[in-house]
Amino acid sequence: MLKTVPRVPALLLDLDGTLVDDVYEHALAWQEAFEEVGIPLTVWRIHKQIGMSGSLFVESVLEDSGRHLAAAEIERVQKLHAAAYERRFHQVRPLPGARELLVHCSQNHIKQAIATSADRDSAQRMLKLLDIDPEFPIVTCDDVPDSKPHPGLFLEAAGRLDCPISQCVIVGDTVWDQLAARRASTIGVGVLTGGYTEDELCRAGAYRVYRDPAELRRHLCELGIQMKH
Amino acid sequence: MLKTVPRVPALLLDLDGTLVDDVYEHALAWQEAFEEVGIPLTVWRIHKQIGMSGSLFVESVLEDSGRHLAAAEIERVQKLHAAAYERRFHQVRPLPGARELLVHCSQNHIKQAIATSADRDSAQRMLKLLDIDPEFPIVTCDDVPDSKPHPGLFLEAAGRLDCPISQCVIVGDTVWDQLAARRASTIGVGVLTGGYTEDELCRAGAYRVYRDPAELRRHLCELGIQMKH
Repeated sequence: MLKTVPRVPALLLDLDGTLVDDVYEHALAWQEAFEEVGIPLTVWRIHKQIGMSGSLFVESVLEDSGRHLAAAEIERVQKLHAAAYERRFHQVRPLPGARELLVHCSQNHIKQAIATSADRDSAQRMLKLLDIDPEFPIVTCDDVPDSKPHPGLFLEAAGRLDCPISQCVIVGDTVWDQLAARRASTIGVGVLTGGYTEDELCRAGAYRVYRDPAELRRHLCELGIQMKH
Repeated sequence: MLKTVPRVPALLLDLDGTLVDDVYEHALAWQEAFEEVGIPLTVWRIHKQIGMSGSLFVESVLEDSGRHLAAAEIERVQKLHAAAYERRFHQVRPLPGARELLVHCSQNHIKQAIATSADRDSAQRMLKLLDIDPEFPIVTCDDVPDSKPHPGLFLEAAGRLDCPISQCVIVGDTVWDQLAARRASTIGVGVLTGGYTEDELCRAGAYRVYRDPAELRRHLCELGIQMKH
C-alpha cells in the first residue's frame, strides 16, 4: 500500500472559472441562447449551474424553468451559446496566478493535469491564453463519455499521470468539481474565482478554499505538496 | 407609540439586481472600465462589491487591488463603466415577478417606494423596462448626499411614504442593502437574484430570503403584509 502513495499528491485542475476568468461571460451567453429559443432565464440561476457538463447543464436549466426542448432544439441552444460566448471571448482573461501556478509546479516536477468539461479546441485556446505549452496534459469532454459532476474526467487525468486518484487533489471553482472529487473518493480544493462562496464549496466537500490560483500556489504546503527535499 | 405603528409595513425596494436582472452586465462593464485605465480585476471580486454607491464601490475595488487612481481618473472610470453598461443594456430584463409585485401592492394599497444608488435617468429607464408608471415613488442618488450602505436612500423613501422607517421592510439582493437596513434600525429581506447566497444575506441580517420578487409576492404574509381586512 505504501508503495502506491507518492511523496506528493498530483494536481488535477479545472479550467474555466479556475484558471480562466470566463464564468460571467458563459452565464450571459447561456441567457442569450435560451432566450433565442423562447426560454427566459435569470442569470443568477444559470450561474449556479455552470460547471456541469453541457448536456447535464441544459437538462438542469430546463428542469428549473419547467420547460421542455426537443433534441434538435437543445443542439440549437448549444450552438447559440457557443456563438454568444465567442462574441464575448475578447473580454476573457487568465485568473491571477494561473500561469504562475502551472509553471511553478512544472519546474518543481509536481505532477499536474487539466480536466475540463470543455472540448479540446476550447481547451487548447485557453492554454494559449494562459501562455502554456500546448503539450500540457489535458483531458476534455472529447476524451471521456461523461463529464462533471461524473468523475470520469479526473479519473482519466489521474491515469495519464500514472498517479492513484486517491493521491490527487482536484482543484475547481464550482460545487460540481467537489461532487466529482467525492465520487472519485479523493480530495477537493476550491477557489473563489467562479463566484461561489467558501461556505458553498466547503459544504460541497472542499478541504480548503483559496481566493484564486495565486493564493493556492502560495499555500501548496497546506496540501502536502512539498517542493524541496 | 401604537399610533405610529401602521396596520401593515411599507416596502422599500432596491432596483438593480432586485427588480431588474443586470448585476452580471454591471460586473463585466466594471471589469472593462477598470482594464481601460490599466487595472485588471477579476469579475467575481467586482460582483461581490456591486450594490454600494458608485464612489464607495470604486474605493473598495481600488483598495482590494492595491492600486490608486487620481480623482480625474476615477471620473473617467465611471464614465467608461456607464458606456460599457450601455453597450450591454439590450440584454437586461425585468426579474421574475418584479412588475407583478409592484402592481399587486399598488392595487392593495400597500405603501411602497424604490430606493436605488442609481441616478434618476437610469432609474426612470428601469421603470419603463418594468412597464411601471413613471410617477412611482422613487429615491435615487440624486436625492440624497450618501448612497448605500448609508441608509439615507431608505430614510428619504420612508419619509416620502410618511411611514416610520422602523415600519418599513427593505428588500434587496446585496449585503449592502442589509447593512443599510441595520443602520436604519429596520427589517431587511433578501432576494437571491443578485447572485448572493441565502447564507451571505442572512449573516448580513436578512430576516427572510426569497428566490426572486415572484416568490416574495407569494409570501408577503410572512412579512406581516396582509391584503384583506
